[in-house]
Amino acid sequence: MKFNDLDKTAAYKNLMNLAHAGGTAAFRLSAAMTAERVEKCTVPLAAGLNFNWAARPVNDEILKALAALSDEQELVSKYRSLSEGEIMNLTENRMVLHHLVRSPDGKSVTGKQVIGGDRDIGAFYLGELKRFKTFAEKVRSGVIKPAPDKTFTAVCQIGIGGSDLGPRAMVLALRNWAKAEGIRQLRAEFISNVDPDDASAVSSDLPLPETLFILVSKSGTTLETLTNELFVKNKLKKAGLDPAKHMVAVTSETSPLAKNSGYLDSFYIDDFIGGRYSSASAAGGVIMSLAFGGDVFAKFLAGANEADRAALEKDIFKNAALLDALIGVWERNFLGLPCTAVLPYSQGLSRFPAHLQQLDMESNGKRVNREGRPLAYCTGPVVFGEPGTNGQHSFYQLLHQGTDVIPLQFVGFAETQLRDDIEVEGSDSQTKLNANLAAQIAAFAMGKKDNSGAKEFPGNRSSSLIYGKRLDAYSLGALLAHFENKVMFQGFIWNINSFDQEGVQLGKVLAKKILQAKDGSCGDPVLDAYAGLLGIL
Amino acid sequence: MKFNDLDKTAAYKNLMNLAHAGGTAAFRLSAAMTAERVEKCTVPLAAGLNFNWAARPVNDEILKALAALSDEQELVSKYRSLSEGEIMNLTENRMVLHHLVRSPDGKSVTGKQVIGGDRDIGAFYLGELKRFKTFAEKVRSGVIKPAPDKTFTAVCQIGIGGSDLGPRAMVLALRNWAKAEGIRQLRAEFISNVDPDDASAVSSDLPLPETLFILVSKSGTTLETLTNELFVKNKLKKAGLDPAKHMVAVTSETSPLAKNSGYLDSFYIDDFIGGRYSSASAAGGVIMSLAFGGDVFAKFLAGANEADRAALEKDIFKNAALLDALIGVWERNFLGLPCTAVLPYSQGLSRFPAHLQQLDMESNGKRVNREGRPLAYCTGPVVFGEPGTNGQHSFYQLLHQGTDVIPLQFVGFAETQLRDDIEVEGSDSQTKLNANLAAQIAAFAMGKKDNSGAKEFPGNRSSSLIYGKRLDAYSLGALLAHFENKVMFQGFIWNINSFDQEGVQLGKVLAKKILQAKDGSCGDPVLDAYAGLLGIL
Repeated sequence: MKFNDLDKTAAYKNLMNLAHAGGTAAFRLSAAMTAERVEKCTVPLAAGLNFNWAARPVNDEILKALAALSDEQELVSKYRSLSEGEIMNLTENRMVLHHLVRSPDGKSVTGKQVIGGDRDIGAFYLGELKRFKTFAEKVRSGVIKPAPDKTFTAVCQIGIGGSDLGPRAMVLALRNWAKAEGIRQLRAEFISNVDPDDASAVSSDLPLPETLFILVSKSGTTLETLTNELFVKNKLKKAGLDPAKHMVAVTSETSPLAKNSGYLDSFYIDDFIGGRYSSASAAGGVIMSLAFGGDVFAKFLAGANEADRAALEKDIFKNAALLDALIGVWERNFLGLPCTAVLPYSQGLSRFPAHLQQLDMESNGKRVNREGRPLAYCTGPVVFGEPGTNGQHSFYQLLHQGTDVIPLQFVGFAETQLRDDIEVEGSDSQTKLNANLAAQIAAFAMGKKDNSGAKEFPGNRSSSLIYGKRLDAYSLGALLAHFENKVMFQGFIWNINSFDQEGVQLGKVLAKKILQAKDGSCGDPVLDAYAGLLGIL
Repeated sequence: MKFNDLDKTAAYKNLMNLAHAGGTAAFRLSAAMTAERVEKCTVPLAAGLNFNWAARPVNDEILKALAALSDEQELVSKYRSLSEGEIMNLTENRMVLHHLVRSPDGKSVTGKQVIGGDRDIGAFYLGELKRFKTFAEKVRSGVIKPAPDKTFTAVCQIGIGGSDLGPRAMVLALRNWAKAEGIRQLRAEFISNVDPDDASAVSSDLPLPETLFILVSKSGTTLETLTNELFVKNKLKKAGLDPAKHMVAVTSETSPLAKNSGYLDSFYIDDFIGGRYSSASAAGGVIMSLAFGGDVFAKFLAGANEADRAALEKDIFKNAALLDALIGVWERNFLGLPCTAVLPYSQGLSRFPAHLQQLDMESNGKRVNREGRPLAYCTGPVVFGEPGTNGQHSFYQLLHQGTDVIPLQFVGFAETQLRDDIEVEGSDSQTKLNANLAAQIAAFAMGKKDNSGAKEFPGNRSSSLIYGKRLDAYSLGALLAHFENKVMFQGFIWNINSFDQEGVQLGKVLAKKILQAKDGSCGDPVLDAYAGLLGIL
């Protein structure tokens, strides 16, 4: 495999010529939009989902150049290698194996065994999956209980970042669907922030005698998580409960939390699963299996695996994640657009944008290439979003009529999750929701002329649409994997390491310095001064 | 008053020269950061809050030029005129009077009576405030009740956009503080999205016989809100309850909802209160007064009014909102930075960034000046954010080491809201929280050299800090008003109308077109095609 910076590729020059020679100006999305284009520009994603890119600013010539970029940067080959255990996280000297946790046979997505040290890693992941599935069934059936006369009715995850945002978004996404399907649920809550108001508010609202806490920290050393664990343990003790009967750990086998008598059980992940890629591992699997049952989690994994297999396809017109990644790079590097909004028209996906914000910005917010050399081009964009139609009444004003163009990623479903709807003025709410979604795409792309400047819509604003029948465990898994794979492909294009996060270290070091201050000073006058403003020094 | 586009001002040329002649390159924030600078660069905001701008990329020369811009664009004069009733919302031919709803004497912030038609508008707002305060006290004391044997224990607001995001963020911000202060609370929930999964999930989790719904729609015609009202009315009827005994309306006197026997009572706002500026009006006041009592809401208004008065000061070093606005424009238009992140280190402010996202992006996401002519410079930035320390484990990677610089607005408090903390390793969680906050500001500004590219932090990344003792109703009011006034000043600088939202119209029109389709077509093939993908045509 060859690793080249984007601006050293032949495709880059070609794409830059297209952008400068009128790729932007000559190709007018508003003029290109036809019903035929909408119908033609769809790629199956996985699990019944489809990716439609009709309203993104690309024509055949641009797409041909993007396909050449894909070939030149060997995107699919790199994905294959990554999945088979090549050390792709160079700074940390680690394999990148989140695809393997959703493999049904414990083999890579290409069908190979993955060995680390003397261990079959896929078998290890399958073993943990089986262990926590069994554990969850025992908790749900009352075999494992906090006291002879009690069963667990609630679970609460203590974790932050990757141990929080993904699992939280997934649980929220399945709650209403599971209710409609009659799936018995344990109440599921989360504590993450080191702000004690978080742990205090959540824990005081839980039925402590019936609550199982899930402590998630791969390293077993995350400040926020360990502090919140002690916070909760104190609460349990004050309530006359034994913390060891109310806690399980998800961690690495080498962490201080492993094989620790302070927990009912421990489930393991390893260094090959990055935090933000861990929703399908035990970090997300334990709480999903406890909350909804192991069968639901299995469907989630199946959806993700289906999307992973679809991402092996070399033809960009048959690979939704690859195509999405390439068009995103066209918008970012050749049209110069710095942000992307994720806009799910589904209340269940209310925190999905916050998870993607982490996934994308922590993975690709890098200024050096994989060898550590500064790059001369832009990498990961700012990602933000809220569910529609809420966003329409909020920040869409800027999206339609602001001075910057923000590419949009819409997600929509034909059916509701709860199947509890009302007809008003001849249509139900789900139809209104989707009429709004369709209307927005057209409004952004085509705009509207008006004699009044304030009422004019410039149009030519890019969006894509991921659509499917209904948001359930299966489609959710595919949706998540689509974005993980899109982010991975973009990292390959930019020649960066999408799997480390060195940018979180400096703040940690300086915070520790302040916390170790003596006699009102940590030795750094600027830190002292800010700590003084905040009343801690 | 003179209304000039920013690029037609003398100050613009001067600032552009400073930026090009080395304002960016010559002024290195990392080199300028000293304890003295941190201590010097603080302006009192209001209600005990302070605004510290030490870590923003400005020196004396730049600030002098920004002060000249403030004078040339007559920012404070325009604010005075606005508050006194000048028609500042030209496209809608409306006054802009949200400052007046928090005036304790019903006069403008400059002390003048504001007349609209033949009415004293301040007296009208004060009258409504008194009416809903009395109503709320009657509900809280059980004088107004849903049935002889029941009292109201929960309230639920049905609204969207300005009727949702601001009030929701404020209620969340006060919940924990009120609990710690022993203030009796009615449970407060919100329904906004037209996705029926929102109304169904929220309403099925509420104790309907004891719930008072607050329908908020200024026009009384908002599709989402009216649909969700009917959804809830159906639920009430199915539960054998009379909707008219479970609902109040917040609307304009001329709307279909006014003086309507379907509600226990109606409280009025008018066209001079924009949705996103309505948190301090009845749109936020009714639910805050019901949830926490009228005295809490009065403190919130007092904090906002104090910030409004502070914003009258012409000296930019004594006016936090003005200074924040000017430095923001320096970053946006002269350093070319397209985004701003809002990062509150307080769990209570978890949805405050979502409100600011609306406030800022809907107000200043405009591409034409106040007369409707296209602008040649950038206006409002993309705004996003999540509470720290959660964000640190998510998107901060990009903020520290991404290829784009994102100016940051931090908010922090010395004390917790709940006063329920734990000491671990020699410090409590609140101290850890604030140590992280102080550390982040220093890390962003000063960076860190490293031989390994991946471990290097470029620094010179802008942030400001709003800090105070504790987040309570009083400081929250000031915090909200600060950002409202900052956005207003920036709108004046850019010479745009920050008070209309024409960009929301086109989507509404096209959605309606789809909903009125006959025989499977609405007459627009592109809309038909997208509606087809989503299963509604």
